[in-house]
Amino acid sequence: MDKGRAEAFSDGVLAVAITLLALDLHVEATGHGSLVHQLGQTWPSFVAYVVSFFVIGVIWVNHHALFSLINRVDRVLLFENLVLLMFVTTLPFTTSALADFIIEGGSNARWAVLLYGISNIGMAFSFTIMLSRIVHHGLLVHPVTPEVGNQAIRRFGLGTVIYPAATALGLLWPPLILIAMGGAAIYYMAEQTQILPSPA
Amino acid sequence: MDKGRAEAFSDGVLAVAITLLALDLHVEATGHGSLVHQLGQTWPSFVAYVVSFFVIGVIWVNHHALFSLINRVDRVLLFENLVLLMFVTTLPFTTSALADFIIEGGSNARWAVLLYGISNIGMAFSFTIMLSRIVHHGLLVHPVTPEVGNQAIRRFGLGTVIYPAATALGLLWPPLILIAMGGAAIYYMAEQTQILPSPA
Amino acid sequence: MDKGRAEAFSDGVLAVAITLLALDLHVEATGHGSLVHQLGQTWPSFVAYVVSFFVIGVIWVNHHALFSLINRVDRVLLFENLVLLMFVTTLPFTTSALADFIIEGGSNARWAVLLYGISNIGMAFSFTIMLSRIVHHGLLVHPVTPEVGNQAIRRFGLGTVIYPAATALGLLWPPLILIAMGGAAIYYMAEQTQILPSPA
Amino acid sequence: MDKGRAEAFSDGVLAVAITLLALDLHVEATGHGSLVHQLGQTWPSFVAYVVSFFVIGVIWVNHHALFSLINRVDRVLLFENLVLLMFVTTLPFTTSALADFIIEGGSNARWAVLLYGISNIGMAFSFTIMLSRIVHHGLLVHPVTPEVGNQAIRRFGLGTVIYPAATALGLLWPPLILIAMGGAAIYYMAEQTQILPSPA
Repeated sequence: MDKGRAEAFSDGVLAVAITLLALDLHVEATGHGSLVHQLGQTWPSFVAYVVSFFVIGVIWVNHHALFSLINRVDRVLLFENLVLLMFVTTLPFTTSALADFIIEGGSNARWAVLLYGISNIGMAFSFTIMLSRIVHHGLLVHPVTPEVGNQAIRRFGLGTVIYPAATALGLLWPPLILIAMGGAAIYYMAEQTQILPSPA
Repeated sequence: MDKGRAEAFSDGVLAVAITLLALDLHVEATGHGSLVHQLGQTWPSFVAYVVSFFVIGVIWVNHHALFSLINRVDRVLLFENLVLLMFVTTLPFTTSALADFIIEGGSNARWAVLLYGISNIGMAFSFTIMLSRIVHHGLLVHPVTPEVGNQAIRRFGLGTVIYPAATALGLLWPPLILIAMGGAAIYYMAEQTQILPSPA
Repeated sequence: MDKGRAEAFSDGVLAVAITLLALDLHVEATGHGSLVHQLGQTWPSFVAYVVSFFVIGVIWVNHHALFSLINRVDRVLLFENLVLLMFVTTLPFTTSALADFIIEGGSNARWAVLLYGISNIGMAFSFTIMLSRIVHHGLLVHPVTPEVGNQAIRRFGLGTVIYPAATALGLLWPPLILIAMGGAAIYYMAEQTQILPSPA
Repeated sequence: MDKGRAEAFSDGVLAVAITLLALDLHVEATGHGSLVHQLGQTWPSFVAYVVSFFVIGVIWVNHHALFSLINRVDRVLLFENLVLLMFVTTLPFTTSALADFIIEGGSNARWAVLLYGISNIGMAFSFTIMLSRIVHHGLLVHPVTPEVGNQAIRRFGLGTVIYPAATALGLLWPPLILIAMGGAAIYYMAEQTQILPSPA
């Protein structure tokens, strides 16, 4: 199957999800205190918004890079891609829950960290499973040896270790999950390494 | 008419609808009980979310497969496609109604099952009508005999039987509609059969 | 300028607007009467939803047909296109206002008719102005004589007469605006006429 | 990297953001006064809606023009593009806050002006930084001399001066920010100048 529409549909879902994140930013017009007071109360929403925006942004950049390596898709890859997108679309909800409870601390904050962690861990695993599929099932434009493929999977599959670790840190002190996720997003944006070495 | 923009517009509507499903996931920040209590109360929203996500996902995969068989569209097909998309866009609403009332049982739950059933039955019939149109009105890149075409319509038109049956089951015991729809989605994702045999 | 991204952006806006229409469909989970009672109370939302869905659907089909006639865009056309899209994006709001007040009658219903009319009249005028621009400013792939161009403008500009007339009817009896708009949408979908005659 | 998906993703985000602006338009069905009274009370929402619609429209037109000059993207440009899109997606929120508080005057209105200004100033700087990147890092299809490139940056970077100035005016009298932003949008739409001179 042609990969064009899978890219277009994924771009659409990612674009809608990244924009819906901003629906959690809002203030009340009257009877809820001054605007600056409300902004002061809801600042975790702004921090969580920026972090999640770049989390989805990084997913998009890597999705883009992943699909540029293949020339066709199969049904299994489409299904794995849907699972990835499903976790992405939960992010506006889990970001909002995290922003609501992060300050409060206690068990509410830890449950919110867990929800947010699940969105992110789900994305990391789905992405790694997709990379494994394209490397090992003949979808690559320029096939690679199993060794090269497995190296790429280990390197890009790092998220499957980092994101659970970030979630565990957040269970200790909730803000750590945002700091760790934000740091990972900056690392992925700055890192120039290609998923696979260019064909010689 | 060129099929490219019909695909792009459909991808857009499907991508927005699948992402809006997640708007039904939410928790209240304060004064509505603990987060884990709220999650415990709203778990049907999560189940319904996952099922509807894959219902739309399957529609997208099949839409993709259907349009890959044709090289142009006519006005009637565009109109039928709009009807399909109209039923798809009602799904966030009917999914939300189902999640709200499914536990409660009684006549509210049955009405919610009926609403959810209508969204799905409408999609199944619209899709079958579109397949019939492209097979019988010369829109195929590789025309097939009427026999081959009718076989494909019978096989892909199965949804027009399965979805009403799933709705009927749900009227007996509401959760059955989600189980049946989820099962049908998994079947369609796993099933490798092409809509039409590849041209020799 | 290349027309591809103007099409992609317009498809995106139209797809989001047509899907957001469904946000006006909703029921309350508890304490607002039975589901069937709520559906009985909000039926105008469903009728208005279907009519507006096809109003946007027709705009999309005609937008598609219009852009298939040109091979490039200029800044003025992009600006006119933005004005068209601005009126389209108001439709979820004006549809919702119409559905809320149409039953009530009186001056509220008439104001709602007027709002809904403005969305539609704005679209009709914007579309006609765009057609005029492409015919008279050398954007056509196959240029036509001024006579042929003006004929097309008169025929497709009919909406600039029909939509104000539908609004006027709605001021007399509000449901007439939905009946008239729905009728116009069906007419445009069924009507096979091309915007311009095919080049010989 | 290929620029096609960066355009598609950006078109998606811009299309969703421009359409979500309209979510701030709404009236209450009952018990909140007559429709015309409510429209009279919420008119700043309509003015702010139109201004922000064209602010995003202009960003889209210029984004389109910018990407037509390049034939590939690099990771830094994708990151800068994400920052641009992040500011764009805050605009529905900051537009809504401005519309809610602009009439009230006082410190609430000034804080709302500041929020709205930050969205716009962020977009102006991001856009200018992107233009600088493509001119100075070899992404142009037709490379230009540093002088020609710097001229273009100065001319299109005007927003980095105009938008802070508009914000400052709004701090004196809030409506001035909408008047200035609306004026800037009209200027950019009307202005035919290309970003870079056409290659000879």
